[in-house]
Formats: sequence, structure tokens, C-alpha cells
Amino acid sequence: MLKEWGTVVERVYRFIEENKEMYIEWLQNLCRQPSVSIENRGIEEAAHLVKMYLQDIGAKANLIETKGHPIVYGKIHEEKERTLSFYNHYDVQPEHPMEMWDCDPFAAEIKEGKLVARGAADNKGALMARICAVHAYQKVYGQLPINIKFIIEGEEESGSKQIKELARTQPELFKADLCIWENGIKNEDGSFELKLGNKGILYVQLVAKGANVDLHSSNGAIIENPAWRLIWALNTLKNANEEILIDGFYDQVQKPNEVEKQILEKMEFEEEETLNRLGLKNFVLNLKGTELKEKLMFQPTCTICGIHSGYTGEGSKTVLPSEARVKIDFRLVPNQVPKEILQLLREHLDRHGFSDIEIIAREGSYAAKTDPGHPLVMKVIEATKKLHGIEPRIIIMNPGSGPMYNLCQQLGIPAVGFGVGNPDSRKHAPNENIFIRDYVEGIKMAATVIHDLA
Amino acid sequence: MLKEWGTVVERVYRFIEENKEMYIEWLQNLCRQPSVSIENRGIEEAAHLVKMYLQDIGAKANLIETKGHPIVYGKIHEEKERTLSFYNHYDVQPEHPMEMWDCDPFAAEIKEGKLVARGAADNKGALMARICAVHAYQKVYGQLPINIKFIIEGEEESGSKQIKELARTQPELFKADLCIWENGIKNEDGSFELKLGNKGILYVQLVAKGANVDLHSSNGAIIENPAWRLIWALNTLKNANEEILIDGFYDQVQKPNEVEKQILEKMEFEEEETLNRLGLKNFVLNLKGTELKEKLMFQPTCTICGIHSGYTGEGSKTVLPSEARVKIDFRLVPNQVPKEILQLLREHLDRHGFSDIEIIAREGSYAAKTDPGHPLVMKVIEATKKLHGIEPRIIIMNPGSGPMYNLCQQLGIPAVGFGVGNPDSRKHAPNENIFIRDYVEGIKMAATVIHDLA
Repeated sequence: MLKEWGTVVERVYRFIEENKEMYIEWLQNLCRQPSVSIENRGIEEAAHLVKMYLQDIGAKANLIETKGHPIVYGKIHEEKERTLSFYNHYDVQPEHPMEMWDCDPFAAEIKEGKLVARGAADNKGALMARICAVHAYQKVYGQLPINIKFIIEGEEESGSKQIKELARTQPELFKADLCIWENGIKNEDGSFELKLGNKGILYVQLVAKGANVDLHSSNGAIIENPAWRLIWALNTLKNANEEILIDGFYDQVQKPNEVEKQILEKMEFEEEETLNRLGLKNFVLNLKGTELKEKLMFQPTCTICGIHSGYTGEGSKTVLPSEARVKIDFRLVPNQVPKEILQLLREHLDRHGFSDIEIIAREGSYAAKTDPGHPLVMKVIEATKKLHGIEPRIIIMNPGSGPMYNLCQQLGIPAVGFGVGNPDSRKHAPNENIFIRDYVEGIKMAATVIHDLA
Repeated sequence: MLKEWGTVVERVYRFIEENKEMYIEWLQNLCRQPSVSIENRGIEEAAHLVKMYLQDIGAKANLIETKGHPIVYGKIHEEKERTLSFYNHYDVQPEHPMEMWDCDPFAAEIKEGKLVARGAADNKGALMARICAVHAYQKVYGQLPINIKFIIEGEEESGSKQIKELARTQPELFKADLCIWENGIKNEDGSFELKLGNKGILYVQLVAKGANVDLHSSNGAIIENPAWRLIWALNTLKNANEEILIDGFYDQVQKPNEVEKQILEKMEFEEEETLNRLGLKNFVLNLKGTELKEKLMFQPTCTICGIHSGYTGEGSKTVLPSEARVKIDFRLVPNQVPKEILQLLREHLDRHGFSDIEIIAREGSYAAKTDPGHPLVMKVIEATKKLHGIEPRIIIMNPGSGPMYNLCQQLGIPAVGFGVGNPDSRKHAPNENIFIRDYVEGIKMAATVIHDLA
């Protein structure tokens, strides 16, 4: 099958292979530009760099200034019937903890077939693969068979506030027949993961305060310890059965429907491999099989992302801390409203006697889902099969989060995500990486979708 | 009364007043030498500096090398009947958190009548006051009326391991009729606190481990979170009623006896003032009066000194941590054995399903008590009254810890502690300070005790 169809698109693949060194350099160049949104580090430089790449491939590109970081917006309008949009982000997570990296997180070194860099998998690799696909397609055919929009924000790692605001005030900028979502992985069997939805998120910080100054710990007998208060408060939020104990928290949570259940059952998930890679004996509650996948995809979470109080350096400082802080993210499923969950959390703490614990919250985002039966989504599914004959794995609900609800679902645009990561890409963690071969295939995949969508 | 008695000792006081600028400079000089034992920072330099001061006042001084930090040992042997020993330490706590200091913690600046420096109160002020007292006494009278020993260790802030070992192997070095313990405060009414005992301590670190690498927090649905495990484990250790829930923990704890109860009831404790200073509304469990004092002096504690897991910087990093650590100190009362408490803790964690949580423990130390009716202790009590006519406040049991059991009680030496701190000295905390006037009076107090002990 590939043979005949290939007469058309194989030239693009060949061009990609012939120019892959250049495409790898483009990505290294992008990864070498730090762009840590929550620290406002390298943001302007990264935005301009991305704009420059868009202009280089012939897009009409500009920076949309916002109250936060600029959004890079690019358009290649070929007066075609169909419009495909690419949603990506040029920002990355902080590289902390530095000492766990085997190399400089912004050196973008290639080691044993992998590019190791903060942002390589999330999501500069996917972003650059799309830019390269457009470049290659045009080089081979002179023009594109569809209209293309690039929508590239700089605050994905810190809540996507500005791009949500833009989608609210200027929805026409986002109009498209299909949106290719930021990111995804290729599995060890070579199959692409296609993501059709993602969880929502509510990220909060809880702050407990004690005396107005750190004290000698001998005072622990009579002075309230905010670290203990925070422990007791947290203990009321989730139990060792992984049940979130906030009244009403699960009210909007729905079981997967029949179609979703079938996809879930078919979905492969390398349990042993994942456990071995992470050095673990089992998943939570010793879950396996469909139950495990359902927990991952269809259940909301309450995760401690960070906790700090008092002295945590070397040795044994005997101090009674004056403050304790914890960062928690709730990953939400469809119909859970971040603002309502925040309200339930406040009420829960008050009810349990923790009115003194302050909640600092971000706005949060809703979960989003795309119908796997949508005709354009089916075209993407077909494209992965054409590319290398392997069935993709459909992820109904990516357990991570993003502004898909605001940018797509709310505007009636179906969304599907794929990318260039791998199961051990270590997103948000030290030694983030992608395989060079996955990057090159990611360029081909994007080119195939561009071709097939026409 | 002071008048006649004063004919003898008033000349020493006068000498101290006339030379106080010099004595203040000596202390500033010592405080400017960082000596953070748990970071092994400035230790050798500080030990040599102290030895030099001892030699300057005519002591036969040397450094006793150990497997850890050296012990400064000094002796002025006047062939007298009585021997008084001074126990102090030249090490200090780390200055963390730096950003909370109003000035450089090692600049030893004088501000509004206070010397602000790490170690000023704990316990370089008291140490130097004793050196100055010996200096002044000798300058006035040519010789001392008693023999003096200085025993000055460099690991008090990290468990006093080496000096305990020295007391075990060379107890003759410690032999004395009375030991003046390291430290203490003067209250706002001008009264000295005299400490006749201190709590023991067991300091542990608990470590929970999850995946071998930090993960994206979306994995929180299925991957065990060591931060949550630590929360659940900690929650089993102590409840919101401040009860320590380890089986057998209270078995050796005794109620105060009648004499102790009387001293406790007489003991003044500025509740309102303390609360106001710390910005608090109440003490734990809303305790007041004798109950509050009994809790502070006679009850063991379980205090979180520090907890850390995951990302704790600015903003909202969505990470599932691979590890969580907590530092806890248990302040122990007489008859509680650190090693046994450690064993009870291990059994408790195992029994509650937390065998996976590792305990890293230091050796710990026993609580110690000196009989308030001992004739030499009574001489010290009398000395404070003579000095300025104000009754001292007797602290049967200092809620802090130290090696008093090993260095004194076990060797049959009564111990009493006093010093130059104040109720807001901020020991172990930012802006540690002493009043210059308290330092000068501390020199006089030490001189008085030297004089009266003869």
C-alpha cells in the first residue's frame, strides 16, 4: 500500500532523511535556549527564535504580546479548503534538581542516539518536528496542500493563562478543522501514542504558619509546629487507599463509556517494563491491567509535588520551623470544575479545623476530550499506519494537563496529539531526552498528516 | 549586704566595667569566626582562637584531638581545695535561612545595645564571659581562689559525640566539685535563669523512597508518592492533641516530685509576653500556668525540625517526587533511653505498615538533673542574689539538650547553667543576639561564683 501512496509522499520522506542533520541542529539550537517560564528565564529570546524559524519556512509570523509571556503566532495561508493548527509551547520546566543530570540540561548533547536536554521531549522536539515537516513539504512540492496555523505559547508550564485569555477574546485566531496537540510519545514497539484528551488541573499551595520566627526545637513542647499542622491537614485529604477524602470531590467523575472501555482494554501498557524502569515493585494498590489504565486515565488525583519546612540541609539542626508549605496538584477529569474543587478544598480544611491554613491557588484548567470517531481524527490514525504499518495506541485521556478545553473543545475543534518522546523521556525530570530516530520519524509523521488531510 | 561583701569583689566589678570595651571586642572577635560544626566550617580556626584566649588568661591550654572536632581543654591550677569546671562549646548552628537576617550573621555588629551574631547567645557570649571573669579576677587579685577547668567542645550542635567519648575514656579530665554548664538567659526583670538539668535528645531522619527518578506529576494516579507515604507515617506518630502515639514512649516518663512541683509553681513564665513576641494567640492545647510549665520541662517531645520533598521553589512545577525526607527530634526526659526510643520508633513504623521507611539516627543523649539542694548549687543561687539582689529563676529541667548526663551526672558532678542570653535571643534562628549589658553582667556573675566558691 505504501508503494503507490508513497509515490506522492516518499519524496518528502527522502528529503527529510537527506536533511536530517540540519533538522537536528535546528532542534539543538532551540533546546540550547533556556526558556523557563516560571522563572521568566530566556522567554523573550526563545519566542523570537521560534518566530524566526517560522518566518524561515515562509510563515507570516508575529509575537502576540500579552500580560504574561508572548504567544508566537504563525500562518501559512494557501487558500486551501482545510486548515490544520499546531498547538505547542516554547517554554520548559525548571531543570531542578541539577545534581541529578548527567550533563548540562541546556547543552543539548547527543548521547547514544538520544538528544538530552530540558524541553527535548516537552515539547521542543515536537514543535521543531512540525516546523521541519512544513519546511520539507514545501521544499519538495513548492506549496502546502492545506492552510497551516502555528499557535505557540510561553506559559504552558505555568498554567497557560494568557493563551486561554486569547482564545476567549480572539477565538478566530484558533479556528481550524483539526488541531494537532503539542506532544506525545512513541512506544517501544514503534507505535505512536495519539492523545485525544487531557485531564484538567488545579494546582494549589497550602501554607501553615506558626511563630513569626524559627525557634529552637526545645520549644516544640509548647509552641505549635506548622509542619505538624500541615501533616495533620494533609492526612485528611487522601488516605493510604489512594482515596481523596474531600466531600463531593468525586461527584462529577464518570466511569468510561463502552467505546472508551474498549479502547482502554485494547490499549497496551507495559506494566513490568515501566516498573523495572522506575525501580518499583508495583503500582499503587497493586493495580494491574484495565483497572490500572482506568485509574491512570479516568480518575482524578491529589499529588504532593513538593513540601518544605524548616531545616533540610546536611546534619541535624534542631529548629522549630515558623512555616510549612506544600504544593499539590489535582488532575481533574471531564466535568470537574477547578474553581469548584478549590471551594470544596477550602470547605474541607475549614470543616476539619484547619481554617488557619492558607490556600494559594492558580486558576486551573478543565479536562478535554475529542471523539475518537471524528473523520479527521480517523485520518490521523490512518496516517500513522501508512507511515510504518503499526497501529497507533489511542489515549482517550492523557493524564497530564493543558489548555485543550479552552483552545479546542470549547471552540468545537477536534484535537489529537502526537510527538517525538519515548516512555523514558523523563519530562519535567532530570535527563529529559528523545531518540534522534523518533525525532526524524516525528517530522515524517507531521508531513504525512499535512499530506493526508488535504 | 552588698556593701561589706563588696569590699572584696567590687574591685573586680569595677575592673570589668573599666575594661568592658576590650571584653566586648574579644567576644566580637570570636563571633566573627564562623564555626558551624555540622558543615565543618571554620572549626579548626575557632578552636585555635579559643585556645589562644585561654592561654592569654594564663591557662595551660591544649587541643585534644578526637575523631571529630577538637576539644579545647584549659586548666588554671592554683593548688586550691575546690575545682570549678566550665563546660562550653565553640561551635554554632548554621545561619540558614540567610534571607531572614537583618545583618551578616558573622559581622558581630552592635545594634541598639545588642550584639547580633550567630553564636552570640548559644554560646559564645557565655564562653567569653567566663574567660573575661577569670581574666578580671586575676588582674585584680593576682591569682584565683579556686582551681578552674575549661572544657570547650566543638560538636555540641551536632550531638557531642566526641566529648562523651572523652568523658568515658578519661573521666579524670572532667573531675570537679561543680560544673558551670554552658548557657542560660537573663529574664526581663533582671533575674538569672539557673538551669539544673536538661532534656535528652534523639534526632532521626526518616526517608521514604518512590520511583528512582522524579516523574511528571500526571503519574500520581498510579505511582506511589513517597511524600504521601511520609505524611501518612508521620500522622501515626503524633496527633493533634500533641500525644506521641508510639507504644511505650511514655513508660519511663515521671511526674515532677513535690520539690520540683514547688519550684515549677514558683517559676515565672511570661506567657502573654512570649506569645506576643512570637505573634501567637496561644500555646499548644491552650495550656497555661503550671500545666504549661510542666509540659515544657517534664514532657518529652516529637518535633519536626525539617521536611523536604519534590519541588519547593517559585511557581508550580508539576512533579512526582522520588524521595521524601523528614528530620525529627525527640526531647527526652530522665529515664528515657535514646536507644530504646529508637527501637520503639522502628517497631511502631513496622507495625503501621511503614517498614519501607528508613530511619537514619544519631546516638542521642540522656536527660540529666542536678539536686537543687546541693550546697555548691546553693552557693551559685546565693551569688546571683548578691550580685544584684534579684532572686534567680530555677529551671529544674532545661527543655533543650546537651551532654550533661555524660559529663556531669554520670561522674557525680553537680551542674548548674547560667549565661548571657535573653528571652528573645533567637538561638538557632536568624538575628541571634545578646544585650551588651547582659554580657557585662554575665562576666560579673562568673567572677562572683569564682569568688564565692572558695
